[in-house]
Amino acid sequence: MSETIYVGADIGGTTIKVGVCSAVGDLLQTYEGPTEASQGADRIVDNIVKYVHYVVETSGYAWEQVGGVGVGIAGFLDIPNGIVKFSNNLNIRNVPLKQQLGEKLGVTVKVNNDANVAALGEAWAGAGRGIANCVCYTLGTGVGGGVIVNGRIYEGFGGMAGELGHMAIVPDLEAIQCTCGMTGCLETVSSATGIIRMAKDAVERGDKTSLSLVPDIMAKEVIDAAKAGDEVAARIVNRAAYYLGRSMAATAVILNPQRFIIGGGVAKAGDFLFDQIREVFAKYTQEQAKEGVEIVAATLGNNAGVVGAAGLILRS
Amino acid sequence: MSETIYVGADIGGTTIKVGVCSAVGDLLQTYEGPTEASQGADRIVDNIVKYVHYVVETSGYAWEQVGGVGVGIAGFLDIPNGIVKFSNNLNIRNVPLKQQLGEKLGVTVKVNNDANVAALGEAWAGAGRGIANCVCYTLGTGVGGGVIVNGRIYEGFGGMAGELGHMAIVPDLEAIQCTCGMTGCLETVSSATGIIRMAKDAVERGDKTSLSLVPDIMAKEVIDAAKAGDEVAARIVNRAAYYLGRSMAATAVILNPQRFIIGGGVAKAGDFLFDQIREVFAKYTQEQAKEGVEIVAATLGNNAGVVGAAGLILRS
Repeated sequence: MSETIYVGADIGGTTIKVGVCSAVGDLLQTYEGPTEASQGADRIVDNIVKYVHYVVETSGYAWEQVGGVGVGIAGFLDIPNGIVKFSNNLNIRNVPLKQQLGEKLGVTVKVNNDANVAALGEAWAGAGRGIANCVCYTLGTGVGGGVIVNGRIYEGFGGMAGELGHMAIVPDLEAIQCTCGMTGCLETVSSATGIIRMAKDAVERGDKTSLSLVPDIMAKEVIDAAKAGDEVAARIVNRAAYYLGRSMAATAVILNPQRFIIGGGVAKAGDFLFDQIREVFAKYTQEQAKEGVEIVAATLGNNAGVVGAAGLILRS
Repeated sequence: MSETIYVGADIGGTTIKVGVCSAVGDLLQTYEGPTEASQGADRIVDNIVKYVHYVVETSGYAWEQVGGVGVGIAGFLDIPNGIVKFSNNLNIRNVPLKQQLGEKLGVTVKVNNDANVAALGEAWAGAGRGIANCVCYTLGTGVGGGVIVNGRIYEGFGGMAGELGHMAIVPDLEAIQCTCGMTGCLETVSSATGIIRMAKDAVERGDKTSLSLVPDIMAKEVIDAAKAGDEVAARIVNRAAYYLGRSMAATAVILNPQRFIIGGGVAKAGDFLFDQIREVFAKYTQEQAKEGVEIVAATLGNNAGVVGAAGLILRS
């Protein structure tokens, strides 16, 4: 059989996850090994090469069937040239990843940022399967985003399309500073970090909440308390949902995507969170721009990155 | 010579403007005739056919050189099938314009809405020439918009991409109702209609302004008064500019276009208005998402529609 397979590599600060995908995005085999970022850029590149070869070998497919290797990585990238200009969590600078991997692997290599790649994974083979146009949110430490246009990642002029977490959406008088330097960014309220901050602020100022008994508040505890009827926690989750819904309403009249796909740790809150987002979205979105538009949960979980990285070969 | 030409038709409530364009969007010949909308849909279609034939004849090119005819029309459309579901200013319903014109003209026909077509005109052969990704605003009676992705009109799932005038951007407590039924839409403040309304409100409540001497306030008078130092008028124009800038800041992290192009009557205010928009955009847009991004004036004026309609053949 000469079926073509596609390999994805999701480069994290601690581990590198690699996977083999079919031409329709089914994940056939995975492997995960240490990144060893402290050993420098060459070691990271060598590890990617080693793990990619290993996962193909163990998949039962031949190396000749590999149609290309896609790489997702957090950081500031020159996407067309596949250069990692700066990656904070890997502590590397100006690494021509696409070129180096291309030479060592002898196949097509494409590189893109982790948020775009996770979005592509969901769009290609997750909650967006069969949908040409969708917008993905990842609610984690920050709020990541990715815009899929005609089945492909849309990068925009300077590669900043889909930077949804940095939409200035909180009114000035309520805004706090974001890690990006601006104030009022969506991720200051709708990320796990934002939810934890709001909860800690509430406890510190003495609000009556069950969270005051929690030693180290995480987003999950805030959501659980909200579900259990804690009014302070409920208000915090509602605020996170409100600004997500507002940002989707703005996106709806710009791009009119068919689906908004929400993943990341905070999305585990499920319909309790989603119904609040849907309500705000419905209120602030024009009739025709919301017709048939769905807000759904991501389905690939932690595999979105590796699947989307493989998808770069066919869909970017 | 067998150079291919492209014909555009811009269907207005009163007149139909047709034009012949080269393959790079240069406008070679135009003609304008009455729409005769009161005579019904068949007469409108017949007039389009008549004017298209006439403009080609007078252009010096042969009918055989026509690569297709594009049509821009205001209304609610089924774009892929070229059906006018409802057009308010032509008072027609369910007209299969693409099919009827295709049969009568014997060439490829494409139909799209007036805002998209004007945006394409500017992107193809106006202020966006040579730019792959831009977002266009038309500040007139309403606020129209169009999104250009990779040189083409982007329509989105339900054809509502680029409906920028209906972004809910004014905070609830300051919002008024839009003609679309929602409250707080961009066009309630940043259209000519919005500017006039704010000016009339100011006069009615007795604000100290030179506008109280103007018998029938138009947007131009408000802008001129603002330029002349009238504080009330200046505040109104600043509010219109503020929400435009905010909407562009949101758009920048979703699409990261290279250029925002602003046309329509209100845009004639020039840098007086644009500088205020640029200031707000700079304040509320993340560093990398605004790097190299320009906010510029449309250059085709009333020809944007006819040029963009012709462009539909090559760019949609």
